[in-house]
Amino acid sequence: MTSSTCCTVKLFGPRTFKRLTNAYSLNIRKFSLSSKKNMRLVQYRLKTGGPQHLGAQISPEGDIFDISAVDSSIPNSLVKFLANGNGIYEKAKRIVAAGKSVTPLSSVDLLPPITKPDKVACVGLNYKGHCEEQNIPFPKEPMIFSKFSSTIVGPYDNVVIPPITDCVDWEVELAVVMGRQAKAIRQDQVKDYIFGYTVAQDISARDWQKKRNNGQFLLGKSMDTFCPLGPAVVTKNKVDPNSLAIKSWVNGTLKQNGNTSELIFKIDFLVSYLSQIVTLYPGDIILTGTPAGVGMHRNPPEYLKKGDILESEIEGIGKLRNVIA
Amino acid sequence: MTSSTCCTVKLFGPRTFKRLTNAYSLNIRKFSLSSKKNMRLVQYRLKTGGPQHLGAQISPEGDIFDISAVDSSIPNSLVKFLANGNGIYEKAKRIVAAGKSVTPLSSVDLLPPITKPDKVACVGLNYKGHCEEQNIPFPKEPMIFSKFSSTIVGPYDNVVIPPITDCVDWEVELAVVMGRQAKAIRQDQVKDYIFGYTVAQDISARDWQKKRNNGQFLLGKSMDTFCPLGPAVVTKNKVDPNSLAIKSWVNGTLKQNGNTSELIFKIDFLVSYLSQIVTLYPGDIILTGTPAGVGMHRNPPEYLKKGDILESEIEGIGKLRNVIA
Repeated sequence: MTSSTCCTVKLFGPRTFKRLTNAYSLNIRKFSLSSKKNMRLVQYRLKTGGPQHLGAQISPEGDIFDISAVDSSIPNSLVKFLANGNGIYEKAKRIVAAGKSVTPLSSVDLLPPITKPDKVACVGLNYKGHCEEQNIPFPKEPMIFSKFSSTIVGPYDNVVIPPITDCVDWEVELAVVMGRQAKAIRQDQVKDYIFGYTVAQDISARDWQKKRNNGQFLLGKSMDTFCPLGPAVVTKNKVDPNSLAIKSWVNGTLKQNGNTSELIFKIDFLVSYLSQIVTLYPGDIILTGTPAGVGMHRNPPEYLKKGDILESEIEGIGKLRNVIA
Repeated sequence: MTSSTCCTVKLFGPRTFKRLTNAYSLNIRKFSLSSKKNMRLVQYRLKTGGPQHLGAQISPEGDIFDISAVDSSIPNSLVKFLANGNGIYEKAKRIVAAGKSVTPLSSVDLLPPITKPDKVACVGLNYKGHCEEQNIPFPKEPMIFSKFSSTIVGPYDNVVIPPITDCVDWEVELAVVMGRQAKAIRQDQVKDYIFGYTVAQDISARDWQKKRNNGQFLLGKSMDTFCPLGPAVVTKNKVDPNSLAIKSWVNGTLKQNGNTSELIFKIDFLVSYLSQIVTLYPGDIILTGTPAGVGMHRNPPEYLKKGDILESEIEGIGKLRNVIA
């Protein structure tokens, strides 16, 4: 133990080492206390540069266990990691338990936890309050549209208002991340196919969504930077996706204040429904709808402007903070 | 030369060798005669199995130069190859000119020439005849929707009618394949950003497209196998995308018989328009619309049924042949 401590001190210098070992002991203790705690998967880059890493946290502000560094056969992308098949969670857990390769959260830039998924499927009109605020009856079946996956940005990245719109609006959403390929699965099977959950912002250019493009939502939903995601994908164990507070703020003012219990179509139903129509792949993301309080249906309507700070939080999952640019 | 012939004979046996050397001489001669001929990029797998390869043909029925086998740093995926940046065409041309690693077309199964693009963007109502057959005025701006990229299948793969629809229809379309990242480019720049063209079938479940999903086309367009693609991506040089015969047949009966000259929004306009709204990435596919003659607008309407043979051809690009299953 002494020799290994010695070695670490040499690598990091004494102050960094102290911070690391404190963080390490803290994380390990927490993890040991509750081995059924959720794991939080993140993609990140060191502030000093270099390639993308795949890491795991065991608490929202905790340091990161560098999964992709421990074993060179492990990809640095969560989509690819999930596509490699079963056992990812067990593998991540073993790496965390071994306590190797810990990186302080403060020394990294978090990237979106999922990049280049096959699909970003979105559910419209899935909160009762969001239907009521626009005087639309509750839908009888889910309404599914999509965002191009090129819209995805990190949890603290800028959302850029493009020159072609001035009606950019917010929609905080619980996002499901698929863990296994799913085709025509039953509702009672869905939990086995989900990997976890994350927070998404379904940023929308309302003019393009509603008045342009012949009624097809795609373009209004797909402008660059229109899908902030993260900060982590939280594994499904211990998360009840049907009972989570979900909120958004603009410049500190609470705008959306809902609960996923208001979902008209619940997660199990949605994933089963979609899987009857298309094959879902590991890493696919399903945005499950937004609660009341979006800008468009306020009186007068409110839209995001440059310099605004948009925050989006889901209980137990995490919080996004995006500056509008 | 004698010793290398000897070696090849040992590897392939004399009959295969004769076929190979004939094909090789033929291809090389053709290529030498017209060095500005289009290259045809294909993804394929040997009938004997093994991994995907990336190859190039210089004629539609010609044998395949195995680009990914010649240099292990070359990816076996066209999307990844294009993402690697400039020079792909020159690199492919050098490999073909060197005449190494030739595989007879008869010994491979062609896969879709593009898999897992970031986007499959589609243009609706873009042929005058297709607007007229449904009594819809010509659109004033392009109508863009999308298919999930998981819909893509190979040029000779089955199209599967899922149990949730019996209104499956055909739409032959010229598909643009992007070669470079494009954001807010002008019409006169578009040609520099396109890599080439291929044939697509925008298979559509008309009930889901028109009557379900609250008017959003996505699900009716995105069922598994609903985007046959190929057989090759033909490089842009020598192709005038605004003057190509475009046809489809069901069980040998001509159903669509148009020309890309009828496009309401031309390729240069479409790509520039889309690039104002989203960033286009190498390998992204844009389906440019279908001419008159789809099944839904016939009297009575006609839909595909199991056992039908759907053929789709674009002049100078290629022909798909898909059995309905």
